[in-house]
This record gives sequence, structure tokens and C-alpha cells, in this order.
Amino acid sequence: MNNRVVTGITTSGTPHLGNYAGAIRPAIQASLEPDAHSFFFLADYHALIKNQNPSRLLSSRLEIAATWLSAGLDTDRAIFYRQSDIPEVIELSWILTCVTSKGLMNRAHAYKAITSQNITKEIDIDDGVTMGLFSYPILMAADILIFKANKVPVGYDQIQHLEMARDIAQRFNYIYKNNFFVLPEAVISRNVATLPGLDGRKMSKSYNNTIPIFDDESKTLRSSIMKIVTDSSQLNEPKNADESHVYLLYRAFSNEAESDDFKLKLNNGLAWGEAKKILYDKIEHELAPMREKYKKLIKQPEHIEKVLVDGSFKARKIIKPIIEEIREIIGIRNLKKSSLNNKKKSLEFKDRKTRFLIFKDLEDKFKFRIISSDGNDIIKSELLFNDPKEITSLLKKIKINLIENTNNVDFDYISFFKLYSIDIYDKDKKSESTIFLSKIINLLDSIKI
Amino acid sequence: MNNRVVTGITTSGTPHLGNYAGAIRPAIQASLEPDAHSFFFLADYHALIKNQNPSRLLSSRLEIAATWLSAGLDTDRAIFYRQSDIPEVIELSWILTCVTSKGLMNRAHAYKAITSQNITKEIDIDDGVTMGLFSYPILMAADILIFKANKVPVGYDQIQHLEMARDIAQRFNYIYKNNFFVLPEAVISRNVATLPGLDGRKMSKSYNNTIPIFDDESKTLRSSIMKIVTDSSQLNEPKNADESHVYLLYRAFSNEAESDDFKLKLNNGLAWGEAKKILYDKIEHELAPMREKYKKLIKQPEHIEKVLVDGSFKARKIIKPIIEEIREIIGIRNLKKSSLNNKKKSLEFKDRKTRFLIFKDLEDKFKFRIISSDGNDIIKSELLFNDPKEITSLLKKIKINLIENTNNVDFDYISFFKLYSIDIYDKDKKSESTIFLSKIINLLDSIKI
Repeated sequence: MNNRVVTGITTSGTPHLGNYAGAIRPAIQASLEPDAHSFFFLADYHALIKNQNPSRLLSSRLEIAATWLSAGLDTDRAIFYRQSDIPEVIELSWILTCVTSKGLMNRAHAYKAITSQNITKEIDIDDGVTMGLFSYPILMAADILIFKANKVPVGYDQIQHLEMARDIAQRFNYIYKNNFFVLPEAVISRNVATLPGLDGRKMSKSYNNTIPIFDDESKTLRSSIMKIVTDSSQLNEPKNADESHVYLLYRAFSNEAESDDFKLKLNNGLAWGEAKKILYDKIEHELAPMREKYKKLIKQPEHIEKVLVDGSFKARKIIKPIIEEIREIIGIRNLKKSSLNNKKKSLEFKDRKTRFLIFKDLEDKFKFRIISSDGNDIIKSELLFNDPKEITSLLKKIKINLIENTNNVDFDYISFFKLYSIDIYDKDKKSESTIFLSKIINLLDSIKI
Repeated sequence: MNNRVVTGITTSGTPHLGNYAGAIRPAIQASLEPDAHSFFFLADYHALIKNQNPSRLLSSRLEIAATWLSAGLDTDRAIFYRQSDIPEVIELSWILTCVTSKGLMNRAHAYKAITSQNITKEIDIDDGVTMGLFSYPILMAADILIFKANKVPVGYDQIQHLEMARDIAQRFNYIYKNNFFVLPEAVISRNVATLPGLDGRKMSKSYNNTIPIFDDESKTLRSSIMKIVTDSSQLNEPKNADESHVYLLYRAFSNEAESDDFKLKLNNGLAWGEAKKILYDKIEHELAPMREKYKKLIKQPEHIEKVLVDGSFKARKIIKPIIEEIREIIGIRNLKKSSLNNKKKSLEFKDRKTRFLIFKDLEDKFKFRIISSDGNDIIKSELLFNDPKEITSLLKKIKINLIENTNNVDFDYISFFKLYSIDIYDKDKKSESTIFLSKIINLLDSIKI
């Protein structure tokens, strides 16, 4: 089992202090763990979906790369590259496009959010939706699967996309009868610092309340901090630290002892102006050396270019054998090599039967599916089991129950399956209940439990 | 103006005599014309949409390549390559994905054919639809646009896809404010020979009535021809040549004098058995030398591989400057180069106003569109004009008419625009007629005609 962690970095906008404390710093720290094998990429082909302003796309990419490098990303340990330098990612994206059902994309939250707005507005349901936005989860799956990565740090809003990457990987494995792709797991960061912005709301570009990291000089940082909204406590009055944005920001840049000390000072009546100066010193202490690096780097786009190109070479070295194997599996391969195995392969792929799959899921629990020969899920369980044996014994029990009820016209098999949190999928939908029931019994029969 | 003709060859199944006479032979002949600059590619990444049997995909690709080469494709003149060897095609496909509206894909015939079947069956509308099938027209657009090809030979069933490639190219040109892509024109072959199969229906794999081209030995060809259905005319009875499949096949392989002579013989009572022998001799005369070549080639996959790889080098030589320009346009480019133009570019892309576009279309006629600042077509003309001046004077006339009718509640502006074959697009759909009218007047005002 490898320990590959893939992190995509969106390349729109200039990173601010909230990005730094919430994403950049923790990701870099994680990449320094001894067993980490980290991949960071500038997701410029994703950015293209929303950003069709070439110069903004470009300058933002430069600033973001310089920020991560200044913030301590060690490109000897972690692989840092630009998505658009890896043609294999886009190639895999097309390969996955061919195995992904459109129905899966129809269910993506980001897409549904737009269509439901359009429905409310009574305009065309797909108004303003590009194919890029619609296909986004497939490209994301390719970003991850191209390394057979098994860990992907995601925010809550990305969990569904990661689930889709797993679905797509499974579909590929099923169609091509192998277990080629590792099913990547979401690593959900629960302790991410969400910084308050100048006005106290979450720091975010859309609220226009951000504190810049490396903007020009330290005085920009200082003047931003001086603008942070505080309550109207008087000079020597005790301050409520926990409800103060100044304190929350300070905490994100100090250890426990320091922040306790700062809290105490506030409770003892430290004036807001003084508090902001202390906060400024604290942040400036962390940022100043980085800012120096940043100022140098940003003037050396050719150096950053070199770092990224070097990163892409390292990434492609890992990717090359993987994409070659994928091409081999799908039949897009060198004619020279392949003609030899022709006969053997065509036998292998002739028959396709019912499949009974047990998956190991998050937290080492088990799930199952029974998939009919035409590739559609027929029975799919939502329950998690501790042991595969539990699954087979449940299925035995179900089978006996179903057989007993074969001629019972009142038997409500849908509710029956719901009892066990099992989804059953009736492709023809119009089947008579009894016909469908006997289909399921046949299916259970054919897996020989 | 270049004269680039791009032809995609699907790589599923083994080519038969109908493919040979209807597609392969005419395309090869066209590529031998003095001013032709032809590109032929094995569309294996398209094939992946329908063909998920790797060994079939592979063997079919080998047979098809060998067939085209045996049939006289001159790879010194035409560029013959494999789609999957050109990563830039898939890259461009993603770039185009980001500018293509989902609505456009919703309207594709192939997709609609499946959804309407699903609706009839009362199953999920997208049942059985993969994203590959849904996105197919975008990959096809990339195949064409990557060469800035201006001619694409298509069958009637492909006209819509070509129209979509034009739409996608226009959309790219609009978003990135240039005329980068040439709008490719469909070249519809009207004189394609559709051969009858053994049973008299169109020769097609799906009817299982095909005559193989190079299958094993000439005796397979002979025995297939002997099986062709004929009418029950007796030995010396006159035969109706025009209604005979034997004659139609003969005609596809002979010049006018020869086929007239054959017709005469049939009218004079040539027996069917004799007629079939003559037909066999005729076809065999054309195919025999090709079969010899084919038999040699099919045993040399490494030679075919070399031909295809050489072709991909030639193709990529043409593609390289084009994709580099595209990357430059969209902002996915070398940081080194680009930082220089940063300032200039960001000014250029800051404002986006109403645009009045006049296109040169097929046959050097003109069309126009007026596009509002949010990028949606507002006014689009279907008429062709000989001169751009005709367009501006028509718009002046329309504007005066509209202003006169501003307060006329009975004025039916939709019919009014229909008179001039002009489509108007009301994004909000719910606008009051008079409000929408004044919007249009403003729009006409802002383009200062």
C-alpha cells in the first residue's frame, strides 16, 4: 500500500491569510511527515472552467506558486507540478469519461445547485452550465487516480466529488475486470483553522474582508490588522477574548501558552490598539522571512517555471508506467506489443457474468454489491458490515425469505429490502413484482452463497 | 487559406466491400488530388465510447490500418496517424469542454435518440448514456480544430456534429476575443457508392450481409459473390440489370463503358452464374494485388506501428505551434514568457461590452450576431448577405421600425423579426414584451450603426 496524498490547488485569485492558515500551512506541515508521499498541483485546467481571463489565470498561478514555495513547500520531498504539464491527466480524464455514466454527473451538487437556481428563475435548466463545469468531477478523478493515490485531503464540500472518483474507479475496474485502481479515501481535515476576516465573518475573497499575506510591504499587513473590527470596550476595560477576532487570529499563529497569555492580557484590560500591535508582531514574525522569499521569487518567474517543470518530470516518471498499463488494459496500445497477446485476451474478455463484490470502505468496514451481467447494479447495500461473513449470512437469510414469498402477491419486497438498507435496482422498472422477485432470486442463486 | 481535409476512421470491426467502395477508395482518391492536404486518423479514443473490449479494439485497429495502407493510402502525401498518439487532441478537447455549453450537447441527435427511447420505455432518461457518448461532439471538434482544418468530409449523419464543431470554435473565438479558429466546412459526399449486400439490402455489418475484402483467400470473395440473391429469371431469359444487385456491384468496380457492356449482356440473357463469375473477376482484379499487400502487412504489426508513429510525428509538427498558440491565448502558458505581457493583457481583458459580429460564412456570404455583454446571443441572423453593408442598413431599418412601435402594445416583435429570419433570444424569458423591446433597441443603439 502506497501512501500517496494528492492535493489540488486552485489557481484563481491571490492567496490571503485565511488560505495560508487554513490550507497552505497545514498541507505543507503534513507533507513533512516522515512517511508522507505528497503531490501538490496547480489545477490550472480546472481553473479554466471558471476563469476565462488569461492574464488573471496566469498572474494568479505565479502568485500561488510563489506563495507555496515561500511558505516552505519542500520540492525535494513533495512533488509540486502544474496540471497542464501532465498530458496523461487529460488523457486519463477522457478514458474515465468513457466509463462514467451521465447519471452520475447529473447528481453532482455543484451542477444541481445551478440547475435548481435556473428552475427557480424559470429559465432553461442548463443556462450558464458549461460542459467543463458538468464534467469537472471526472477531471478531478483523473488527477487522483493517475497516481493511484489512496489519500485525498478534502474539505466537506469536496466529499461528494471524492465519492464520485471512487465510483468511477470502481466502474473502470468492473468494465475491465481487474482491480487496477485503488479506491482513494477522503481525508477530512477537522481541525482546519477558519480565520475571521476584517469584519469578523469568515475570511473570504467574496466578503472582501481578507488580510493579504505578501502584499507589498509589512505596512499593508499592519494597516489591515488595524482595521479589524472590535467591540466597543474602553481602554482598560476587560475584553472578552473568545469573542474577539483579534484573539482568534492570534491563536492561529501561536502555541497554546502564548495564546493563553494573550487571552489573560485581554481579560486584564489590554487596549485593542495594543492587542492589534501584538497580533501584528506575531504574524509579522512568521510572515516576514517568507515575504522576503516571496519578493525574490515573484521576480523570478523563470525560476518558478523551472521548479514546476522539474516537478512535472518527477510526476510523469511515476505516471508513465501507470498510464501505459491503463492503455494496455483498454486496448489503446502499441500494435507491436499487443498482437502477441491477442488470442489470449479475446478469450479472457468473452464472458461476463453476474458479479458479487465486497468492498472495504472507510474505517475498514464492508459493503457489497451484486451486479448483473449487463453491468448495472442490481443490489447494493448501504449498511456497513464488520466482516464479509456477515454479508453472506444476511444474503442467505434474505434468499430463504424471498423463496418463501415467491407466490405471495402481498409480499412487499421493496419494503423488505429497505429493512436491510439494501437498494434494488429494477432496470426495466415495469417488471411485475413477482417477475422481478424471481430475477433477484436467480441473481442470489448465481453467486452461490 | 489552407486546404486541410481531416478524416476520422472508426476503429471498430473489420472493413468490408461496402466500406471499401463507399469510404476508403473515394477518400484515398481525393487525397491524391494535387492540392489536397489530407489527414487520416484512426479514431481509437472515439471507439472507446462504444468498444470496451480491448482485444477487439486492438485487432480491429490493426486490420483497418492494414486495409487503408493496402488500398493505396500514400503516407508520403497524406498524414496517417492514430488519435491516441496525439495528446494535444485530448488536451484541446478539455479546453473546448470549458467553452462548450451543456445546452449544445443536450441537442445532439445521437444523445437525443437514446433519451427518447428511454422516455418511451419509461426508464431513467439518461439510462445507458455515458459521458463519453454525451461529450463525443467535443472530441470530434478537437480532432478537426487542432489542425485548423477547413474541410471535413462527412456523411449526412455527421452534419450536426460538424455544425457543433463550428459553434464551439465560434464560442472560443468569442470568449478569447480573436478569430483564432477557422470555421470548418462540411464536405458532403453526394456520389458515394452505397453497395447492396448479399441479400440486396445496404451492405452493413448489422444486416450480416457483407462481402469481406481481404478475408483469407480469393475463394472467400468468390463464394460470397456466388451467394448474392438474384431474381428467378431462367438461364437465357433477359435480365433487368438496373434492379440486379450483381449489376450494381459490378458498376461500382468498372468504368462506364464496361458497365454498359455488362448491362447489355444481362439484357441479352447472360445467366446469373456467368454474370457472378464476371463480377468476381472484376472485383478480384482490383482486390488481388491489395490482398497480397494486406496479407504481408497484417503479419507486420511492427511495420504498421512504425507508419502510424511516423504519421503522428508529422501531425504533431503541424499541431505544436497551434496548441502553443492556444495555450498562450487561454493563459495556460510558460510563466517565463508570459509575465512580460501581464500588464498589457490585463487591460485588454478588463471590459467586455456588447459585440456586433459579422461572420464570413460558407460561399463567402455574411451572417451576423449581436451579443450582449454577458456573452449570450441576443440577436442572430440566419440569412446570408452578400455584403456587410446590407447588414447595417437592414439593422438601421429595423431600429427605426422598433422605435416607432415602442408604445404599440399590439406590435408583435417576434413575427417582425421572423420576417427577416432573425432569431432573438430573451434570456429572462419572462420579460414584458415592451421591456424586451426596449432592451433590443438599447442593444442596437450601443453598436452605433
